[in-house]
Amino acid sequence: MVVMKNESISKIGEFGLISIIKNKFINVNNDKYITANIGDDSFCFKSGKDNICITKDMLVEEVHFKKEWIKPHELGQKSIEVNVCDIAAMGNVIPKYVFIGLGLSPKTSEVFVNNLYKGFRNACDEYGITIAGGDIVKSDKIVISITLVGIGRQKIIKRSDANEGDLIGVTNTFGDAGAGIDLLYKHGIKYKYNKAEHYLISKQNNPKARLKEAWKISKYSTSLTDASDGLYVSVNLLAKHFKKGAEINMNKIPISSNLKKVFKKDKEQLNFALFGAEDYELVFTVSNLKAKLLKKMISEISYIGIINSSNEVRYFYNGKEQKIKYSGYRHF
Amino acid sequence: MVVMKNESISKIGEFGLISIIKNKFINVNNDKYITANIGDDSFCFKSGKDNICITKDMLVEEVHFKKEWIKPHELGQKSIEVNVCDIAAMGNVIPKYVFIGLGLSPKTSEVFVNNLYKGFRNACDEYGITIAGGDIVKSDKIVISITLVGIGRQKIIKRSDANEGDLIGVTNTFGDAGAGIDLLYKHGIKYKYNKAEHYLISKQNNPKARLKEAWKISKYSTSLTDASDGLYVSVNLLAKHFKKGAEINMNKIPISSNLKKVFKKDKEQLNFALFGAEDYELVFTVSNLKAKLLKKMISEISYIGIINSSNEVRYFYNGKEQKIKYSGYRHF
Repeated sequence: MVVMKNESISKIGEFGLISIIKNKFINVNNDKYITANIGDDSFCFKSGKDNICITKDMLVEEVHFKKEWIKPHELGQKSIEVNVCDIAAMGNVIPKYVFIGLGLSPKTSEVFVNNLYKGFRNACDEYGITIAGGDIVKSDKIVISITLVGIGRQKIIKRSDANEGDLIGVTNTFGDAGAGIDLLYKHGIKYKYNKAEHYLISKQNNPKARLKEAWKISKYSTSLTDASDGLYVSVNLLAKHFKKGAEINMNKIPISSNLKKVFKKDKEQLNFALFGAEDYELVFTVSNLKAKLLKKMISEISYIGIINSSNEVRYFYNGKEQKIKYSGYRHF
Repeated sequence: MVVMKNESISKIGEFGLISIIKNKFINVNNDKYITANIGDDSFCFKSGKDNICITKDMLVEEVHFKKEWIKPHELGQKSIEVNVCDIAAMGNVIPKYVFIGLGLSPKTSEVFVNNLYKGFRNACDEYGITIAGGDIVKSDKIVISITLVGIGRQKIIKRSDANEGDLIGVTNTFGDAGAGIDLLYKHGIKYKYNKAEHYLISKQNNPKARLKEAWKISKYSTSLTDASDGLYVSVNLLAKHFKKGAEINMNKIPISSNLKKVFKKDKEQLNFALFGAEDYELVFTVSNLKAKLLKKMISEISYIGIINSSNEVRYFYNGKEQKIKYSGYRHF
């Protein structure tokens, strides 16, 4: 129940705001065509034999990026990649059409706009995505509002369908992007970074959607999401959110050698992996039987835990249970 | 050919910027599924028997609206209506799913957000649109980024297919919304407006998409668009843009009695009608034969001109040709 006070939304916080919206205004009716809903990585509906999947993301200067820390073509490319990632998280879906809404200050240089678009275009060309439209409006800060449409010709893989006993799998490594932004906060962009540090920053600025991996994984996985908000949030989404539980073996969380070089303590590494966000890797569940098959197809998969019916997610490190408290990003 | 200077985009202007983007970065390939492209009111593609139509609009505080001049629920409602209007302009298309991206300052009051969403929701309920998703980000100014998806089960009516000899039809009246914003610029919101003035301001703040009219018109029309950028731009879009021409009889442009009461000079009224924008009425072409039939179905239709092959649009008032120069809105 929302109390109608004239409080400013900074006091309510983002999650409070989203709950106001969900409780009072979302009108999802029993539309039998909807195959994945607002709680998933993309919204999907059936059209004939196809699933049309749509995802929308808004990036705002000084909130999601700093102009000084990322090159304009990287920013363009990243804006597309993070949306492809949301499409990938639905399984076997092909990203097809993108709409790019831009808010730009009149002071923005033509070179900046050109390079930003080069980035959009490069990423789109790589995936065969058509830039289908968009608009440009005046804004103090740069706003990039992307809508990406994908077409799925097979069953959509949702977040909700993990089974008790399923293994929890992830792709590649975790924590790099979060460590990268941490370095930028500490030293800015002009600091003389070593090779390992450069790698972490590049993982922050140049994420890659695991589209082809998602196509393969979706053949066998029971649920699937991306790790854009950090591994901790993703595991909660697949397990706790749907009244299931999980046990996570933190020793199995894959950490890159570069992250180990730059942040030497296990605790730091795992902190970035769980809460650092922006890794854009896949997190999924799969039956024990199919898990080995998938690992053979994609060697960059690690299994970090198992789904149970406990309605809580428990973390273990060297066999001992750890108390993990959420410490994620908060918009407002 | 774009010259790569480090000029700021305020010097290039919005149209310059759009041309940079179109020339260099739009990669619309020969996708046989695309049924209406970036130049139309919505982007449409074929999926099975359906046409999926998508439109995206971004409204920014102080650029597209002033918080003082429009109530939050009106703003919410208008944001939906203007997008429904873009869907309506594709013919027989049903608006189905909407994604609402919001940029909000942390200082925004909870009451404002609540009322804004009431507006979104009211408009959506009226059309049976499902609020399918969206996101909220921090932003200095309010940004409303709407993506609306419609499903068309019949042929899409594009802007491009007018024939020589077709009549140019419009719905309802023109100029009211432009006159409304003119009043707000002159006197602000707290001024004691008379009834006719109130009507004009309400047409600015509470536009209605002509969805049902579009469904009827699309049975017979050869081309169709909306008049969101003013009648002048719309007629150019249907005629000149596609190397056709038109003759417009300015005496036939429908002007409301309220606009006539508030702005007494014909010239003022016609200026608002041609350039005032935000009327969100439909502008279409139809063969002479079917024109009468349509007028019988929708009494609020007026025929204001005729399509020819001259590649120019000529305006006549009391039988005399008038030189009309574009004086529209410019973002940057």
